[in-house]
Amino acid sequence: MALVFLPALARMAVCGGTHGNELSGVYVVQEMERQRKENGEGVWPIPVTTVLSNPRAVKECRRYIDTDMNRCFNRDTLSSPITDSSPYEVRRAQELNNLLGLKGSTDAADVICDLHNTTSNMGLTLIRYTSSDWVTLHICKYLQTKITKVPVRVLVLDVPISDAYSLESVSKHGFSLEIGPQPHGVVRADIYIIMKEAVDLTIDWIHKFNSGTVFEGGDVEAFKFIKSVDYPRDPETWTLTAAIHPQLQVPIVLLFSFSIFYYSNETVNYEEEETLHPFFINEAAYYEKGIAFHLGKKMMLTIPTVQVQKD
Amino acid sequence: MALVFLPALARMAVCGGTHGNELSGVYVVQEMERQRKENGEGVWPIPVTTVLSNPRAVKECRRYIDTDMNRCFNRDTLSSPITDSSPYEVRRAQELNNLLGLKGSTDAADVICDLHNTTSNMGLTLIRYTSSDWVTLHICKYLQTKITKVPVRVLVLDVPISDAYSLESVSKHGFSLEIGPQPHGVVRADIYIIMKEAVDLTIDWIHKFNSGTVFEGGDVEAFKFIKSVDYPRDPETWTLTAAIHPQLQVPIVLLFSFSIFYYSNETVNYEEEETLHPFFINEAAYYEKGIAFHLGKKMMLTIPTVQVQKD
Repeated sequence: MALVFLPALARMAVCGGTHGNELSGVYVVQEMERQRKENGEGVWPIPVTTVLSNPRAVKECRRYIDTDMNRCFNRDTLSSPITDSSPYEVRRAQELNNLLGLKGSTDAADVICDLHNTTSNMGLTLIRYTSSDWVTLHICKYLQTKITKVPVRVLVLDVPISDAYSLESVSKHGFSLEIGPQPHGVVRADIYIIMKEAVDLTIDWIHKFNSGTVFEGGDVEAFKFIKSVDYPRDPETWTLTAAIHPQLQVPIVLLFSFSIFYYSNETVNYEEEETLHPFFINEAAYYEKGIAFHLGKKMMLTIPTVQVQKD
Repeated sequence: MALVFLPALARMAVCGGTHGNELSGVYVVQEMERQRKENGEGVWPIPVTTVLSNPRAVKECRRYIDTDMNRCFNRDTLSSPITDSSPYEVRRAQELNNLLGLKGSTDAADVICDLHNTTSNMGLTLIRYTSSDWVTLHICKYLQTKITKVPVRVLVLDVPISDAYSLESVSKHGFSLEIGPQPHGVVRADIYIIMKEAVDLTIDWIHKFNSGTVFEGGDVEAFKFIKSVDYPRDPETWTLTAAIHPQLQVPIVLLFSFSIFYYSNETVNYEEEETLHPFFINEAAYYEKGIAFHLGKKMMLTIPTVQVQKD
């Protein structure tokens, strides 16, 4: 197996509250800030910046104030001129880019771990823009090995970095950490515990990597985003005319000729020419986006053995 | 067993969307309106008024616009003068009182069935203001007998009718129908099916009662509201410093010396002098109200056999 030498990871940030009603991340960030206050900067083996991303939305316990901030980190929005009528989230995205970026520059943070919840029953999902970032994929593999209480899956969007619209794309090797099911506006201890464990393990991996540990390569199972499917809707009112079938209201399942929608008296079957897997089934925030679920294709990624570059 | 003759129940209303992000009721009302359009007024054996209670909040998929409407139906708020600065929900509550009341008058609807969801994992709960209304308690008993998929419980608040603040208090024998767990802003087919079944069974009971069926009396298990308990909070920021213990994140359980709150490294036990039962554990909308859960005391109510009065 090839050995690849990579630069040390000096700057790491943990962000919560990018969506103000996804409370696990808000509480993980608060807990980390409490730990730092109590034990000083040395509480973690590496320096960690903690950020409450959308404080106004957190205060109101809403996803966002004016617009979904986690769609504002593409290059065009980050470079758009700010006027009196600019949405709050566009201003805040530019502030965060100044704090953690600049996106695409050598000064950008090495790793942003952005914390999210979903109402979908899908365990822990690590979302990443490219399928060719060894650092992120090694962290994913580490989390898949260490976390056994819930399924840990990797979803790859394969969007060019300039179009990538979410907060973690500001950093060189960022990823989103999605955990569900949890209603928005609620903290569940079991979900919180898993998220905190995932953050602690990420810090642990970075520290070990920076200290010279050799991480063996191998295969990592991942899912590539293919497309989204909407609910059946009334064409005039755009209200749903059917709900997700109870059989699909479960963690990720094989979706190949399966009942996906439930009406009062009938169900709808769905067939694909290839085997695809649903993600984000019945996520509350996706109703307004016209998404009942995403479909992904399973793939196996091979990653090399990595070690930190010597100075 | 005593036989009590009671007046026929001429006016019945089913209300959904009193909280705009509790979607089961919104979709039940929409489905009933579709059924009426397709099959005419005779689709149900009795006349049923269907109401989308808070249309603006439904459109925005929020609990409320200005204030929680389900706290606006006490006599003082219903009779308060409307000015330009009156909250939207106060105006709408007065409209609904004109449509379905007037509250406390002989013209008021006989039964309002108001549909709600909760993020709490508590099955189907029928909430009622008094422990001495034979009609409502007979409907509760009927639902307890017929619905077997989830637990069906009765919660009695015992508030004087003039202070009773929720929509169903406008009618003579109203009750709220709470179903969970369901995240707000989401429709789950399994939860929807149970709510629709409960509404259909209520219509069924009223029709049978009006037609002369004798309903045998007996014992009905109910829970009387005793008090609410808040989360541990930071006194300065009022943020939660602990979450509900994972063991309590389950349907109603015996709460007598039990771990109720979970901190990072410790749990808190709670002891009561008498056995009390928690309701609405971890309801999202109650964070802002300072409520982690309610406590109720189990009691057995004895109800007489009832039959409709002859003309």
